[in-house]
Amino acid sequence: MISKNKIKILRSLSTKKGRLLHKMILLEGKRLIKEVLSEQNQIKKIWITKEFKNNNLTFTKKIQYEEISNKEIKMITGTVNPQGIIAITEITKGSLDGMFGNAIILDNISDPGNLGTIMRSACWFGITNIFLSKDCVDPYNSKVVRSAMGAHFKQNIVIEELDTLINCLYSNNYQLLSTDLNSKNDLKNLKINKNKKWGIVFGNEAHGLSVLTKEKIEYNVKISQFGSIESLNVAVACGIFLYEMTK
Amino acid sequence: MISKNKIKILRSLSTKKGRLLHKMILLEGKRLIKEVLSEQNQIKKIWITKEFKNNNLTFTKKIQYEEISNKEIKMITGTVNPQGIIAITEITKGSLDGMFGNAIILDNISDPGNLGTIMRSACWFGITNIFLSKDCVDPYNSKVVRSAMGAHFKQNIVIEELDTLINCLYSNNYQLLSTDLNSKNDLKNLKINKNKKWGIVFGNEAHGLSVLTKEKIEYNVKISQFGSIESLNVAVACGIFLYEMTK
Repeated sequence: MISKNKIKILRSLSTKKGRLLHKMILLEGKRLIKEVLSEQNQIKKIWITKEFKNNNLTFTKKIQYEEISNKEIKMITGTVNPQGIIAITEITKGSLDGMFGNAIILDNISDPGNLGTIMRSACWFGITNIFLSKDCVDPYNSKVVRSAMGAHFKQNIVIEELDTLINCLYSNNYQLLSTDLNSKNDLKNLKINKNKKWGIVFGNEAHGLSVLTKEKIEYNVKISQFGSIESLNVAVACGIFLYEMTK
Repeated sequence: MISKNKIKILRSLSTKKGRLLHKMILLEGKRLIKEVLSEQNQIKKIWITKEFKNNNLTFTKKIQYEEISNKEIKMITGTVNPQGIIAITEITKGSLDGMFGNAIILDNISDPGNLGTIMRSACWFGITNIFLSKDCVDPYNSKVVRSAMGAHFKQNIVIEELDTLINCLYSNNYQLLSTDLNSKNDLKNLKINKNKKWGIVFGNEAHGLSVLTKEKIEYNVKISQFGSIESLNVAVACGIFLYEMTK
């Protein structure tokens, strides 16, 4: 049995304000929660329905949980057909100090699905630093968390002014790259110093990068185009860059 | 002024049944409609609001349109904040006859955003054959059309049984590839015959490919993983494959 007050708190986690206040994220669905469970001490609490328990006996035997009704999950998440399992985890603040490894810098990425997919790809390719400009969608938004498939819990996520992020990487001797459709540098011919760390800036395709940021970018790189369409989706472009850069 | 009956027909285009009945797709938003307008004779009719007209004088001078109210657009599309421009275009049926060029085959892709993004990437990389198994989401679904950014109107889209599609390519001497996380063949080391046409099968990550299909695939190929996450998003994986295959 879950108290009305607890339901109220959990429901508030669907808003940025609620997440900031309680420093918690709400997770939903077996696949995501299973992925996050594989990271030590990340999950604070799990709730499951009787039905979920009966359909997932092997899984639920291994975890600690409290029971919840389907109706209560619907009240908390707003999901029409909930899977019967939710959990909460703390938001751990990332940091620019003692930063190591390559980085991606996201400038004004507003679509939650794109942001989550970018974080998932970054995780696949072993990129741990995810830096977001302040005008990106909140990375702890439930849609972002769902599409990132657990990437959040393996990454150093920092939200800062774009200039601060770029300056920090620049002063730490990172090679800075960005995507630019009109560039002459083709990704497939790109020769960067493999001994130096790098950071790639991805901007919202509709907005592009600010002039100030552009000046600090060492390489503007394009992905060759063979057909007639305006642009590539930013999450796809990011995946292609990470594939090529980690080759 | 648009008639009540016309509104009813346009509204029905948000369902698969309505689209099949009228053989029409509804397009929404300036960017998409502009992209489709660049293809000859594809747009059958455009409606715009007064407000849209006033804000887009240069654009609207060049096109033929009828006026519509914001309220009517909302009734038709269900969009909360419509951009003030909608259009209709005919569905042109693709064909397996006289097929040329490389192909992607999509098996059970259920997410509309993923399908649209895949079509957009395919268009970018010059792949014109988009073959869909019958259990894929309808490619004329409005979310697919929105994410594909006009790709629909430059591609040969065929919806068929997966076996029919695979057999057709197989008997036309295509090299068939698929993505397989557990494969030993790494995409970055892949050596295929560049003089032969190819087709790549992308399956829904949660379902995988059927045994029957797998047997006809010449190369099962993986994208190397460097971090710990279950999988890559299918649209990102597709983008990476197309980038590497068209290099």
